[in-house]
Amino acid sequence: MDSQSKSKEAALKRLKKSQISISELWKRILKKDKVALGQAISLLESQLPSHQVFANELIELSNQFASNNQCCKIGITGVPGVGKSTFINVYTQLLLEKKQSIAILTVDPSSQQSGGSILGDKTRMTEIFAHPDVFIRPSPSGQHLGGVAHKTREVILLCEAAGFDNILVETVGVGQSETAVYEMTDIFLLLMLPGAGDELQGIKRGIMELADILIVHKADGENLNKAKIAFIDYKRALHLFPPTESGWTPCVLMASSEPPQGFNEIDEKIESYFHLLRSNGYLLEKRKMQRNQWFIESMELQLHQFIKTNPEISVMYQNMMSEVNDLKISPQIAAQKVIELIQIHGKK
Amino acid sequence: MDSQSKSKEAALKRLKKSQISISELWKRILKKDKVALGQAISLLESQLPSHQVFANELIELSNQFASNNQCCKIGITGVPGVGKSTFINVYTQLLLEKKQSIAILTVDPSSQQSGGSILGDKTRMTEIFAHPDVFIRPSPSGQHLGGVAHKTREVILLCEAAGFDNILVETVGVGQSETAVYEMTDIFLLLMLPGAGDELQGIKRGIMELADILIVHKADGENLNKAKIAFIDYKRALHLFPPTESGWTPCVLMASSEPPQGFNEIDEKIESYFHLLRSNGYLLEKRKMQRNQWFIESMELQLHQFIKTNPEISVMYQNMMSEVNDLKISPQIAAQKVIELIQIHGKK
Repeated sequence: MDSQSKSKEAALKRLKKSQISISELWKRILKKDKVALGQAISLLESQLPSHQVFANELIELSNQFASNNQCCKIGITGVPGVGKSTFINVYTQLLLEKKQSIAILTVDPSSQQSGGSILGDKTRMTEIFAHPDVFIRPSPSGQHLGGVAHKTREVILLCEAAGFDNILVETVGVGQSETAVYEMTDIFLLLMLPGAGDELQGIKRGIMELADILIVHKADGENLNKAKIAFIDYKRALHLFPPTESGWTPCVLMASSEPPQGFNEIDEKIESYFHLLRSNGYLLEKRKMQRNQWFIESMELQLHQFIKTNPEISVMYQNMMSEVNDLKISPQIAAQKVIELIQIHGKK
Repeated sequence: MDSQSKSKEAALKRLKKSQISISELWKRILKKDKVALGQAISLLESQLPSHQVFANELIELSNQFASNNQCCKIGITGVPGVGKSTFINVYTQLLLEKKQSIAILTVDPSSQQSGGSILGDKTRMTEIFAHPDVFIRPSPSGQHLGGVAHKTREVILLCEAAGFDNILVETVGVGQSETAVYEMTDIFLLLMLPGAGDELQGIKRGIMELADILIVHKADGENLNKAKIAFIDYKRALHLFPPTESGWTPCVLMASSEPPQGFNEIDEKIESYFHLLRSNGYLLEKRKMQRNQWFIESMELQLHQFIKTNPEISVMYQNMMSEVNDLKISPQIAAQKVIELIQIHGKK
């Protein structure tokens, strides 16, 4: 019996004691049971080897439901203060009116405590929070982006398997996390403040061009005029962008969440987007590419974890990194030394 | 004696026979001897283990000159037909008038035969080609982008060590290669055709936002009016982009290469860029980040090479990739299996 089987057996024993069974958990997940989903995600996020064994089983079970053509995975980003939380609240209500189910997830490597803006701002969320067809889960905390993004991908897979019609993935971090969310969703919404300029601080360059729908949010009250100008400006700018690979023509919309306005148009656009990508086959193509990317990134992440946990390789890695920074060694040779050590020490 | 020392010894014997010595080659490189540079780059690009030993020595020697604060590494990109070749020709002449030396390199994973547009269009280049202060080298051919980009980084390092005042890196591929060039240069120029629209086909989305200077090229003759409109449009669009990390405000310029026009302004802008980044310390910061990135990417590349060359791991990798695509396994577990095999087989 190899070490994996042993730890699996031990874990099974413990699970028996705690009277949870994976097959029962799985059955409840398929009914979108929120408690079961929460438990499953806790297993996914756990560092305990025994939990990881169960988590892997759940992932393998979910896997057959991956790339569920009916599920809409929607990435939502924007600078802090743009109103992502109220936006998601209003949009979720609209989806509920259409009798759809919604899972709301966040990716936020920067905030390790707040649990993301959604739960950090629960007051606005209470209405939808209690709804049986809405599942809200903040991002796993206390890890670097690679880890958070990786776990979020697994949670998305689980929600896809559970049969949610929509999975909204909000990024509340700045910088790299937007790209991460772009790489795990089907459509990418960028919320903008009315009036361009300093408001853009915090959006990484290159993100604007990734947006499928650009939404000038908070287009109300005193902001309305500024919003209209921003709307025209962005519309003009979008014309100058290169075409998308999906065949979709990115567009700009205006919206306000307090009171809700412009959401029917947003919903129509999102529907047209999915209609186009389903009919031209790009949705499946995109998801296939994302899975390949996930595989490659997962290998790289696990390699880094292996480096970190092996004391000798870890020291070599740190030394090489310093020498690279001090121009004492070229990055290429430094990398070679680490990889050689991995090959030698793999068996230990 | 370990295997590396043995192969080094054998290679040294062979080098003795061919009467080339690394130290002599190195001395000539430091004098910007074009023949020696060419030989050195051939060693870098060679697949022969004996050549690689020498190449590594050259890289280690170059390394102490890395991040030469006086050297300007300039990335130049744009769609086919935008006139990168004539642009580089004219700009090089301007730099020669300022008594500067120039190395011109290309990154082109897509064209394996032409050797890039510079040498594919030698007629326009003959004038500068023969100049003692100009060194032109097409990209290494027949490799995937990762390999090409990696080699180009080494060639840049060699040219930095040789003491070139300017290193122009042209990307003639489409898609990923622009990002690769952005990651290995100090400043990124994007050449645009006058009149926006279909001309953008081929530029990857997200690249426009990376540009430090956007140049509407071929702004002459019948194009002049279209160019002026494009100039204003892009100028307006740039305003809507998020600020850069460097503190530089990206700008749009107009230029024509036949006859040359607008190049003094381009040169002034490039000079201001380097002045700003040298004074605020971002130039060194950026290069440090790029070296770190090179180290990480190099490790990943070498890992992939190891996977490819080990028959058992290679088969496992291919199988896992297919199973990931067929939704038979999750990317995470698939990656785990490959990494575990690497750890077990490392010693073989």
